[in-house]
Order: sequence, then C-alpha cells, then structure tokens
Amino acid sequence: MGGFMSRNLLKKGYKLRVYDVDKAAVARVTAAGAQPAANLAEVARDSDIVFTMLPMNEHVLECYTAEDGLIKSAKKGTYLVDSSTIDPAVAQRVAEEARKHQLNFVDGPVSGGVVGAENASLTFMIGGAKADYEKTKPVVECMGSRAVHCGDIGMGQVAKICNNMLLAISMIGVSEALNLGQRLGLDPKILTDIINTSTGRCWSSEIYNPVPGVVDGVPSSKNYEGGFGVGLVAKDLGLAQASATRAGAPIALGSLSHQIYRTMMQQGLAGKDFSVVYPFIRGENNK
Amino acid sequence: MGGFMSRNLLKKGYKLRVYDVDKAAVARVTAAGAQPAANLAEVARDSDIVFTMLPMNEHVLECYTAEDGLIKSAKKGTYLVDSSTIDPAVAQRVAEEARKHQLNFVDGPVSGGVVGAENASLTFMIGGAKADYEKTKPVVECMGSRAVHCGDIGMGQVAKICNNMLLAISMIGVSEALNLGQRLGLDPKILTDIINTSTGRCWSSEIYNPVPGVVDGVPSSKNYEGGFGVGLVAKDLGLAQASATRAGAPIALGSLSHQIYRTMMQQGLAGKDFSVVYPFIRGENNK
Amino acid sequence: MGGFMSRNLLKKGYKLRVYDVDKAAVARVTAAGAQPAANLAEVARDSDIVFTMLPMNEHVLECYTAEDGLIKSAKKGTYLVDSSTIDPAVAQRVAEEARKHQLNFVDGPVSGGVVGAENASLTFMIGGAKADYEKTKPVVECMGSRAVHCGDIGMGQVAKICNNMLLAISMIGVSEALNLGQRLGLDPKILTDIINTSTGRCWSSEIYNPVPGVVDGVPSSKNYEGGFGVGLVAKDLGLAQASATRAGAPIALGSLSHQIYRTMMQQGLAGKDFSVVYPFIRGENNK
Amino acid sequence: MGGFMSRNLLKKGYKLRVYDVDKAAVARVTAAGAQPAANLAEVARDSDIVFTMLPMNEHVLECYTAEDGLIKSAKKGTYLVDSSTIDPAVAQRVAEEARKHQLNFVDGPVSGGVVGAENASLTFMIGGAKADYEKTKPVVECMGSRAVHCGDIGMGQVAKICNNMLLAISMIGVSEALNLGQRLGLDPKILTDIINTSTGRCWSSEIYNPVPGVVDGVPSSKNYEGGFGVGLVAKDLGLAQASATRAGAPIALGSLSHQIYRTMMQQGLAGKDFSVVYPFIRGENNK
Repeated sequence: MGGFMSRNLLKKGYKLRVYDVDKAAVARVTAAGAQPAANLAEVARDSDIVFTMLPMNEHVLECYTAEDGLIKSAKKGTYLVDSSTIDPAVAQRVAEEARKHQLNFVDGPVSGGVVGAENASLTFMIGGAKADYEKTKPVVECMGSRAVHCGDIGMGQVAKICNNMLLAISMIGVSEALNLGQRLGLDPKILTDIINTSTGRCWSSEIYNPVPGVVDGVPSSKNYEGGFGVGLVAKDLGLAQASATRAGAPIALGSLSHQIYRTMMQQGLAGKDFSVVYPFIRGENNK
Repeated sequence: MGGFMSRNLLKKGYKLRVYDVDKAAVARVTAAGAQPAANLAEVARDSDIVFTMLPMNEHVLECYTAEDGLIKSAKKGTYLVDSSTIDPAVAQRVAEEARKHQLNFVDGPVSGGVVGAENASLTFMIGGAKADYEKTKPVVECMGSRAVHCGDIGMGQVAKICNNMLLAISMIGVSEALNLGQRLGLDPKILTDIINTSTGRCWSSEIYNPVPGVVDGVPSSKNYEGGFGVGLVAKDLGLAQASATRAGAPIALGSLSHQIYRTMMQQGLAGKDFSVVYPFIRGENNK
Repeated sequence: MGGFMSRNLLKKGYKLRVYDVDKAAVARVTAAGAQPAANLAEVARDSDIVFTMLPMNEHVLECYTAEDGLIKSAKKGTYLVDSSTIDPAVAQRVAEEARKHQLNFVDGPVSGGVVGAENASLTFMIGGAKADYEKTKPVVECMGSRAVHCGDIGMGQVAKICNNMLLAISMIGVSEALNLGQRLGLDPKILTDIINTSTGRCWSSEIYNPVPGVVDGVPSSKNYEGGFGVGLVAKDLGLAQASATRAGAPIALGSLSHQIYRTMMQQGLAGKDFSVVYPFIRGENNK
Repeated sequence: MGGFMSRNLLKKGYKLRVYDVDKAAVARVTAAGAQPAANLAEVARDSDIVFTMLPMNEHVLECYTAEDGLIKSAKKGTYLVDSSTIDPAVAQRVAEEARKHQLNFVDGPVSGGVVGAENASLTFMIGGAKADYEKTKPVVECMGSRAVHCGDIGMGQVAKICNNMLLAISMIGVSEALNLGQRLGLDPKILTDIINTSTGRCWSSEIYNPVPGVVDGVPSSKNYEGGFGVGLVAKDLGLAQASATRAGAPIALGSLSHQIYRTMMQQGLAGKDFSVVYPFIRGENNK
C-alpha cells in the first residue's frame, strides 16, 4: 500500500524520501521519482511531514521510539502521521513521546484497501489535535478522497477498529443467513434481493456478497482470492478484543467472530478473503 | 396489525368478513365497514380469498386444520394467505392439507411493522405456486407496497426468518461497536458517520441507530418504547434456530444473538424495542 | 444398543418378543433366544412390559401413536418404557395418549453407551409416576446398574439432555484449555494433571481426555473412532435448544457448542467421537 | 492473601522483611513478627528469597524492573518468586531482566484462594528452571500443600490461566444446565445428583454448586458473597484472551464466557462470587 500512496504524493509534486526494510519496495518508488533514505533517521531529518504504514504494534513502537527512530531524529515541529492499524493505546503512547520532543503526531489509519491506495480513494480516520489535523489534511488528501477528524489521539484507530469489528460480524451474519436460506430451499440471489431492500441490508450483503455469482467482481466470485484476508480481519479483531478488555466493554459477537476467523485460519484459510466464511460454514472450504 | 390491514382492503372497495378471538378488534373493523363473522367457518364459507395473521405455529395449525377450521370450511378453489411469521415447515404442512381440499395456500409474512400496516407500505414475502402468487398479488398490494415471490411454499417464511436473524445480529453488532468506541473515547455520532460511509454500514446503524440522539424519531430516542420488541425478535430467532437445527446449518452468531435477547427478556426487557441491547451492554437498563 | 439390552433380559430369564425394521438385528436377538414379532402390534399384544429404543422424536411418535402402533394394540395396564433420547414434550404427549388407553408410560433414557448396554451397566433416568417407576425398576435393573427416578413424565429426558449439554460444553472447554496451554508451551499431560487436582477438573479432563496419549483406551487415543459421535452430540444439543427456546432459558454456551459441533459435521466429522473437537480447533482434522 | 502467606512463613521460623503500599497490611504482619521495610529496595537487599503477590501486569513490571525496583536492588543469586496471576509474556520479560542481573526468577501463581492462603493449603504452579524450582520449593511449601513444576518460565501462569478459563466455562455450563432443567420442571438437587454420577460432573457441580441450598457453605448458599469475584474471573479471562490472540489459539467458549462475566460486571455484579451467573441468567440478580 505504501508504494501506491507514495506515487500519489509524487504525482502531486511532493518531494519524497522513502525507507522500507524491503529494498525492492524502495526501488519501485525510487523508480517513480522518490529519493531513497539509508535509514529511518535520514527520512526524519529531511522531512516536514512523515508518513508511516506498518504491520503491527511492535513495529510502530520500534520505528518511532527506538534510539535511532523517527522521534529522536526529527526536527522540532515535524508532523508525524501513522497510517498503520494498531492499538489506540500504542498510538497514544507514541504521541506522548513525540510531544516530549515537540513533534506533532496524529494517528491516521485508512480504509479502502490496496485498490483505494492505488486510486487515491482511501478514507483516512485522523486522531489528534484539530490544528494538526488541519495542517496534515492537504497532504493526506493527495492519497485519499476523504480525511475525517475523529477526535483526540488514538480516535482514528478506535474508529477503524470499531468499524472493522462490525464488518467482521456482518460478514458472518450475512453468510449464516444466506446459507440457512439456501439449506431451506431459498435461492441466495432472491434472498439477497429481499435483504437488500429490507432491514437486514448491509455492506456485506449489497457490495461484497459472500455467495459466488450474486455480485460480480468481488472475491466470492473469484475463488475468494484477493480482498481482505482472514488473517488481517483476525488481527483487527485482536485489537478490538484487547481494547474491549481494557475498557470493560462487552463484545459478545465481536469476540465470537474473532474465534471463528481464528478457527478458519487453523483450517488453512488465513490468506483467503474473509467472505470465505460462507463456504467454510458449508464445509466446502476443503473441496 | 390485522385491523390496519383490513381497513386498507375496505378502502379499496373489498367486502370483508372478519373474525378474531378479541371482540374489540372485530368491533373496530366492523365500525369501518367490515361484516363480523361468528366463527372461522363463516369467514371461510363466504370468501374467495382469506387472510390470516396469527401469533404462533400452534395458532396457525389450529386455525387452518381444526375440524371447524378454515380448510374444512372453505369452498374449493379458495385462496388462503397466511401472513403470520411461523416455522416454514408448519406452512408446508398447512399447504399440504389445503391442497388435499383443492384450496390454494400461500405463505405471506410481512415486514414493515404496525406503521407499515397502517400506511399500506408493508412488504409481503410470498411462498407458493407462481400462479397463486399472481392471483393473490392484486389484493395483497392493497395492504402493502410490495409483494415478492420468494419461491415455493414456505419460502416466504424462510426469507422473513433469515432477514430477521441478520437484523438481530446487526443490531447487537452495531451496539457493541458504538459502545466500544464510546468507552474508548469516541463520540457515537462521529463513529456512526464513519460507519455509515464505510464497510460497517447497515440498516441498524443508518436508520435505526441504538444510541439515543443519533437518529431522530427511532425507539432509542424514545426510551426504547414501541418498535420491534425484544420478545418478538427472540421469537423469530427461535424459528431460525429450529429451522437451522433441522437443516444442519451452523448459525453461531444467530444462535448467540438468540441467547442474548433471551437473557435480556429475563432482565425484564421483553417489551422494549430490540435496540435496548445498547443500554443493556452498558448496564444502564436498570437505571 | 437394543440388541445388548435384549440379551441381558434373556439372561435373567425373561421371555422376549422383539421387533425392528432391521431384520438382521432381529435375527441376532432371535438367535439368543428371543421370539420375533411380525410387527409392533404383535409385540404389544403379548407383553406385560414393552421397551423401545428409537433414534428420533418422529420415530417414537409413529411407533406409539400410529393406528397399528403400541398404544392402540397393548392390553390395558401394560407398562411402556421408552429409552430413546427425545424431546421431553414428545414424551409427555405420548404419555398422555397412553393414559387415555389406561396404559402406564415412563420415559427412561440411558447413559453409558454401547459398552454400558453390553455390560448391563447403563444408568436409566426415569420420568413418570413413582408407582410406575417402582413397578418397572426390577426389569430395568436387568439392563443397567442404576435406575434413578427423576420426577414426573419427561423428567428422565430433561435429566439426560441437561447432562449431555453440560458434557458437550465441558469437552470443548477442556479442548480449548489444553490447546491454549500447548500453544503457549505447556505439556498437555502436565496441564491435565494440574486441572484434575484443581477447580477445572471434570469427566472430560479426567476420564475422556481429548488429547491423544493422555488417557489410555479412550477415542482420542484411537484416532477418535468409536465413542459418542459428533452427530449424536449435535442431536442432543438440538433437543436442548428446542426445550430451552420453549422454556425461555438462556443457554449461551450450550447454544454455541451446538453450532461448533454442527460446523464440525460440515467439515466431515459427524461420525468421529466428539473429543475430535481438539484436533479440529488445531486445524489437524484434515491431516 | 499476602498477609496470611507471610504469617505461615513466620510460623515456620523464617525471618521476614515486608513491604506493601497499604501501611495497614504491613502493620498487621509486623505485629505477627515480620520486620517492615521502607521500600522495595530494602526488601530486596536483605533477602535470599523474595515473594511478590500483586494485582496486575503493570504492577509486576513496575515492582521488578523500576530503577529502584527488586531486580536492580537484589544481591546476585537471589531467588525471586512472583505469585501474582499475570500474562505469561510479562513473567518471561521479567525473568529475562532478572537473568541479566544474575538473579533466579520463577513464576508461581497459586490456586486455593484466601482460605487456602490462611490454611497453608495453596497449590503453587511453578514455571522456571528445574533447579530454581527445587531450591524454592521448601520455602514455598510452608505456604501451600503442593508445588507443581509446570515447565519453563511462564508455564506456571499458563497453567493457572488455562485452568481458570476452564473453571469459568464450567460454572456457566453448570448454571445453564441446572436452570434449563429447573425451567422444564426438574429439581436442581436431583439433576445435580445425576450429573455428579454421570459424564457432566465437574468441580462446579460437585463442590461449588451455583444453586442455593444444593451444597452447604458455598457462596451460592450465602447470597453469593465471598469466594471468587466476577471481576477477578473476568481479569483471568482477559489474560487467557490476550495469550490466545498471541498464540492464534481459538477459544470460542472461553471468549464468550469472558463476555458474559463482563456483561455481569456492567449489571453491578463485579464483587459477587462468580457462581452468581446462575441467578443472572434467571433474571433474579436485581431482586
């Protein structure tokens, strides 16, 4: 995703210094006009605004707070935008460190996936001071179609995690409903039509239907390849779970959904799109 | 609901003979122009098409198959439309009895609630022979804005049950997500906005939001009065559960949702709108 | 099971007339000294006490209440003992029919499995009038080591269903605990030892441990063959579910366990012992 | 608990230096013969073996790894035993720090509760090097009746967490089964007898039955006062959840149980014994 995002910034005329542990990724963006940096410190030293996109909590912590990390290397007043999806508490901890060094950190996870990154149609959910949101917004909008200010530090992450938990639940719910209907003799296309004009309708039934052939071009019609992987959904649900435990918020369905996707991972489905829960509950995943 | 439906038929010029165990209900419709019948047999004998709207499986069975019930009393060729929400297998059993007596039975449960019944904006989900659907459609459409042919006998019930199971799941999912967000510091209005333009969006977040003050005029903004009662949702989930057990279809979230609404009933919430799950998981239901 | 039970009665000197739709089953018991009957009516006419052991609700209903079934064919005062595991409400309905014909019906489901049937070590859970329990007890005790009077008609079924629901939950619980421990580095034998002398101990951890090699001779040590099949556990949970829906009793874990075993059936595990949930959550069931 | 444990050590003739943020707690043990310490460093400096008993992860981390904490203050070769119930990963992190300072750390959470602490009948689950286990065992056994070596560092915590997860599941399972039986007409005492001699039996049905009056002297017979609080069970399930997420181990029932206890906390039951789940699912918790 970072590669596409970088190219969209370059297109708008920004000068970019880029770093990644994967040299090939750096090379691709360099070919498009970015300057490679030897390490994180070099990125930080030369930039007015820094974007990061990393897999997990520990990578973000390391990348920002290490001795040779972004925070200790950046000039005072630099803006730092982390677009990783991580625990809101980690975002808050990094922001506190940044503040001590007179840096301006906001969390800005995205929705829209790889396609959104390519088309600059991502939605950024920004958490941080209003002034920092306003300052970073013009740059952010080169990479996405929308930048929403969700509230204080961490609230971008909270928005992302809560939305994705609901999405994860909905997809299982739609799959259960369509499978139950089918087992009882009802055509999934007809049932989808009814649901979509009724009270059960949701993004997972309308746009991203898990039954092959009901909606064109989505993963369910392409052998559940591409899309939003089961492993990634499970990761986001793990963040929801950890936050919910800290907050004492009951999430019975969110939590059960987490276990269902995890069971699917054990059945070898980690890399498939999460709508593969439909064939899974039908016992067709191994065929 | 039957009262409103009857009045809409009268408005269109149909002659009605009505029966209900509740004399007051009969009196209200009689005042509007219907003729009262002394019993079910009298209703059946005089009608070309008969509509029923009853609470549970056993009432439908009794009303249709009793010695002095509709089936034994109706003229050959009569159309019978049952708009109760019941087990598809019961609808199929009644249809079989009707067929033996050369009667034409379709199941036609509705969505849209009391308001839809009053405004003639119900959706009818019809299960039965295509010809019977076509024949009953003009009359059905006097009471609703839409009559969908779902398939063979029972498929109207299947569509209703599957949609409502998904609705029941979505409402809990939305409540969990909005409560989690709020506990972590995110304003439910902001989170609702994000969800509604993102992948988590659904009818329960957009139209029927469970957080007081987010959407005007819905039960959550009226102390959870009116609307779709917890007891009724639990009833529909019981039908889903029974069908799923027969079909061997796994419904992990549907089943857990059933238990959650049932737990809420034990906590004295049977008569509240089902969006009361939001204050329930916050522990605010007893305050 | 019926075969072993019959042989135990013959050993005690009882004269038996037997019927089964499976001719081979009848032949085996005939070889052991029983007299074959041409149909159910013949069994009923000649007997002072009749035992039935059938798979599901509908078979019991048919067998007892059909025109040529047991109830219409038996002499007044005959004792009827149904050892099938069925819905308590069905047992109550059959008992009511029997009473109308002046027959004495008790429900008497068993625990102990095929091995218990062979060794005459079954436990019978009897529901019905105390006098009928006392009258049938001496005969029942030829086939089992224990006959418990649980209460009025249906209570034998209730006891069986509630115990089996708890068993089904415990087995998943033990499997989750032992797998979690193992994934975190703890030897399942050591963890089993700790659990068995602590507050987590249960029949599923002590006697019927789901991890291969921890307890000798149980299905987990024989490739999960034999024992209590996943399909049968799911059947009993279906009965619990139906009863709980009628009673309005929340069974969150019972209900989720039902869905888990049902998911396992879809994955081709219906015929394996129910402790196969352990390899299932490890993703080892397909290897 | 620490108070009782200290007194048992004093009885065996050990010299104790004690520290607690709660001065009253220190005073009580000082009265029994211990010497108060001004701070943690003072405890560490003077001792050959140090025991800690703390509420949560962060307290353990702080107490051991702070600048003036135990690790930086202890003499080389000191034995450190942490009896808190915490995340195994935190125990492993502390152990690594200890090793760097040539200290010997083992984790040793206990089961048996306040009563076990008073009577020196606790079970200690020890994780760490075999030699360290052997060395600390004689002292540990002054406070408990049993010290089990579970494996390497952290495995004591894993054993504790897995056992308690199973316990938490069993208690809900027993409550669901006994309530379902009761709703269907079966006396909980009779059902308990059947379960306890059958395949559903477990510690929660035999020793700690959740129905008032079935077992004497347990919290269910004392208005659910005392015992193992709902809030503490939820804390342990939070640790199980976090570990399971890290390990990718599905814990569907463990996870749902977590949410149920958390829902009960929201309903004001955090301080009641965890067997209060029985009146909760009956809707009797507010009466």
